[in-house]
Amino acid sequence: MSHDSPDLDLDVEFDDDFAGEQEPILNGMAWDLVHQLLNTADEFRVEPVETSAGGVVIDCGVEAMGSLGAGLALAEICLSGLADVNLQPGQIGGVSWPHVFVQSDTPVEACLLSQYAGWQIAVGKYFAMGSGPMRAAAGLEDLFRRLEYHETASGVVGILESGDLPTDEVISYIAEQCGVAERSLALLVAPTSSVAGNLQVVARSVETSMHKLLELGFDVNRVESACGSAPLSPVAGDDLTGIGRTNDAILYGGQVTLFVHGDDESIEEIVDQVPSSGSAAYGRTFLELFEAAGRDFYKLDPLLFSPAEVLIHNVETGRVHHRGRVNAEILKQSFGL
Amino acid sequence: MSHDSPDLDLDVEFDDDFAGEQEPILNGMAWDLVHQLLNTADEFRVEPVETSAGGVVIDCGVEAMGSLGAGLALAEICLSGLADVNLQPGQIGGVSWPHVFVQSDTPVEACLLSQYAGWQIAVGKYFAMGSGPMRAAAGLEDLFRRLEYHETASGVVGILESGDLPTDEVISYIAEQCGVAERSLALLVAPTSSVAGNLQVVARSVETSMHKLLELGFDVNRVESACGSAPLSPVAGDDLTGIGRTNDAILYGGQVTLFVHGDDESIEEIVDQVPSSGSAAYGRTFLELFEAAGRDFYKLDPLLFSPAEVLIHNVETGRVHHRGRVNAEILKQSFGL
Amino acid sequence: MSHDSPDLDLDVEFDDDFAGEQEPILNGMAWDLVHQLLNTADEFRVEPVETSAGGVVIDCGVEAMGSLGAGLALAEICLSGLADVNLQPGQIGGVSWPHVFVQSDTPVEACLLSQYAGWQIAVGKYFAMGSGPMRAAAGLEDLFRRLEYHETASGVVGILESGDLPTDEVISYIAEQCGVAERSLALLVAPTSSVAGNLQVVARSVETSMHKLLELGFDVNRVESACGSAPLSPVAGDDLTGIGRTNDAILYGGQVTLFVHGDDESIEEIVDQVPSSGSAAYGRTFLELFEAAGRDFYKLDPLLFSPAEVLIHNVETGRVHHRGRVNAEILKQSFGL
Repeated sequence: MSHDSPDLDLDVEFDDDFAGEQEPILNGMAWDLVHQLLNTADEFRVEPVETSAGGVVIDCGVEAMGSLGAGLALAEICLSGLADVNLQPGQIGGVSWPHVFVQSDTPVEACLLSQYAGWQIAVGKYFAMGSGPMRAAAGLEDLFRRLEYHETASGVVGILESGDLPTDEVISYIAEQCGVAERSLALLVAPTSSVAGNLQVVARSVETSMHKLLELGFDVNRVESACGSAPLSPVAGDDLTGIGRTNDAILYGGQVTLFVHGDDESIEEIVDQVPSSGSAAYGRTFLELFEAAGRDFYKLDPLLFSPAEVLIHNVETGRVHHRGRVNAEILKQSFGL
Repeated sequence: MSHDSPDLDLDVEFDDDFAGEQEPILNGMAWDLVHQLLNTADEFRVEPVETSAGGVVIDCGVEAMGSLGAGLALAEICLSGLADVNLQPGQIGGVSWPHVFVQSDTPVEACLLSQYAGWQIAVGKYFAMGSGPMRAAAGLEDLFRRLEYHETASGVVGILESGDLPTDEVISYIAEQCGVAERSLALLVAPTSSVAGNLQVVARSVETSMHKLLELGFDVNRVESACGSAPLSPVAGDDLTGIGRTNDAILYGGQVTLFVHGDDESIEEIVDQVPSSGSAAYGRTFLELFEAAGRDFYKLDPLLFSPAEVLIHNVETGRVHHRGRVNAEILKQSFGL
Repeated sequence: MSHDSPDLDLDVEFDDDFAGEQEPILNGMAWDLVHQLLNTADEFRVEPVETSAGGVVIDCGVEAMGSLGAGLALAEICLSGLADVNLQPGQIGGVSWPHVFVQSDTPVEACLLSQYAGWQIAVGKYFAMGSGPMRAAAGLEDLFRRLEYHETASGVVGILESGDLPTDEVISYIAEQCGVAERSLALLVAPTSSVAGNLQVVARSVETSMHKLLELGFDVNRVESACGSAPLSPVAGDDLTGIGRTNDAILYGGQVTLFVHGDDESIEEIVDQVPSSGSAAYGRTFLELFEAAGRDFYKLDPLLFSPAEVLIHNVETGRVHHRGRVNAEILKQSFGL
């Protein structure tokens, strides 16, 4: 601590809001976090995998065991470092149960432009739900046109929710779509039914509320900040059950607070629909709904995907909008409690 | 990690307790944190403002949007870095609601000598509640005589709870009172009804209990450590409502644990009065009480200002003293829930 | 942040699992943390003590006042830095009460090979419960043979739960048992009835569950990760009451989640016994049980020592095993609430 020189550095650069810019800020921040993860690979039980295509593939749960720490790192990388993620003690209907807490002051960038699993990567027999900032470099989704965002990144980072490591063909495909050489691509892979993969999905409480708002036509740039939590679903024995449990963790256990500016009328118009109870499908476990839909993801009500409880603070008018509640019964059923 | 050299550095300087010293330790620590805030100004949506008087003014919520991160930083700077502040999931009467948690091992220095908003700055038409370690440099309050503390600081840091940025006249006045040149003054400004300003007030759960103890004539130096939380009140549409809500967050939602040494009799004598329920005014929202007092702050019962629930651990005798409880009904009324 | 060079450092060394190795990794990590503690000795109110035998003795609560921060540091050093420990808001039967939360991805190393207080150090009139990684260097306990672990460390770190600072004779004895010179030994001392000593014992929620599993013959290496919490017992006026309260904090307030791989049958066989309610002695405060046993620790049911509530996630099969519950009534009785 130096008390001698009271000079403060005022040479701070002021960027405009992230959205709309071309700087590869999301992938850049995620890239730095991948560096950190590599330095703690042993502690976190993740494994860099050599590929002939080039680039970095980190196994976080396919063959590697993974860990809670790897799950938290995976979540923060998926959020491009624009959110804090941690474990907290909590409860499900009187049973003590760890929860995953997320907090961000840039929820559009962290959750929609990075974390949302909006890129379904199907190359040959390979399939993965793709998330993380690589999506912003690829720009394949309508979401990027709506939010007017694209990155031309030198190093690109993606998270693959998959039970298989990507083949050379997959790596080349992703690199090409992102406009980078294979060696400039870092892919982190974990199946839903792994410790780290499971945790990074449960870290999507805020993300699902943001995406629901986008789907409802709400101007998501009005959401200045957000925080939320969801119970850490028990890692499942197979990926289908894992997808069911992680979805239920959000749908029936997710609790989100959004800090929004602007008018209240536009909030009132959509707020009933924001929590999962706004969907007609609400009230059954995800797997039951999935089976009823003939295992066709696209026949499920898209309005189902959102947290159980949503609290909206209008920081401009001071109004509070609250809808939904945690459903401990369905959580216990889904989690085998 | 080096295992080769088992030498531990024992050249540690041992200061006496902070209180009573002349070293500018509070302002020095806060000054370092202001540096850090400037480095993340963009991320936290705060804006350094150029002044002709010199010195650093950082807009954290007047024109600037601010953020939860800015509020946490503002709180920690106001506490001279002598407390940890973070957001935690919590509940208000069954509704999930984020809480602000504070923890300090030097609550006298952190809360009373720094954070307490004891300097009402009125210069011309300008008004602000002044808090932070600049108060220890100015030493205008009786509190500093009672606690025998004064700092001759080279760089001074203050927080202004105000809807207006300070004028040159205000900057010069504060610098003069603190015995420094304008260029050695850093002022952080946020109104109560802004995201960061609202959060930094709710971070005062422990502070209000410490000040209440001081008012009750209790030897506050007996409080070795403290932690506490309060629900993050919804940012209000105007400052008056904001003052009401932030006060209610503490009065009806604040929960504090104090770790105290010494005898139990002196604790028993005052403990009934420590929580807000110790005041005859308890039971109505702050705004109702304020209106009933003719909007005259000084007609309000000074014993009102304290947390809803207080737990005192006597770490010397092992006795536990517990008074008060959270009042979810009034919180819901105040927060418009 | 550099976006220019997308090269990631892949020169990461891969160690095998910790257990079974000869590298002094536990003491090495703890040693680094002792360095950090010395740098914040003043803030944490701990005091390095000069010894004629050589070595570093840090008083964390014998004559020194200690602090919550010192308690958290003591806990993390005792865990060899392989767990995160923090304070969280919580409740005991409707009364707000701070809890100590622990999280680890290497619970065998952190809790059993380091934190477990398995070394009773009795030299002349001196007595202390010894914990921390020095145990792995001494290797005196059967536990190290069962877990096949031993460290030949250059710098050794131990925690002494005792009301007395170690004499030269004690220092020499410990150094000799650990195979190092006195100057390569760092001992941190705090009695149970001190702020830091009390906290570091309450940080043993996960540890007690791990040790119970070991006692029950369960393969503890199947536990990949763990987290848990327990209420911060009020610091007692004397060590006997302190031992009672800290034990009750775990036995009646500890809540642990274990992430385990392998089959469910072997879990089912022992799970009823894992929480403290699995012991016939369950239901009375620790002090009552201790008195009933004629103050003979070894006449107490060894199966008593475990958390109140245990949740086991089988991360391989997806099964969840849940036993026990928090007992607020006994906690209130023990804590004088």
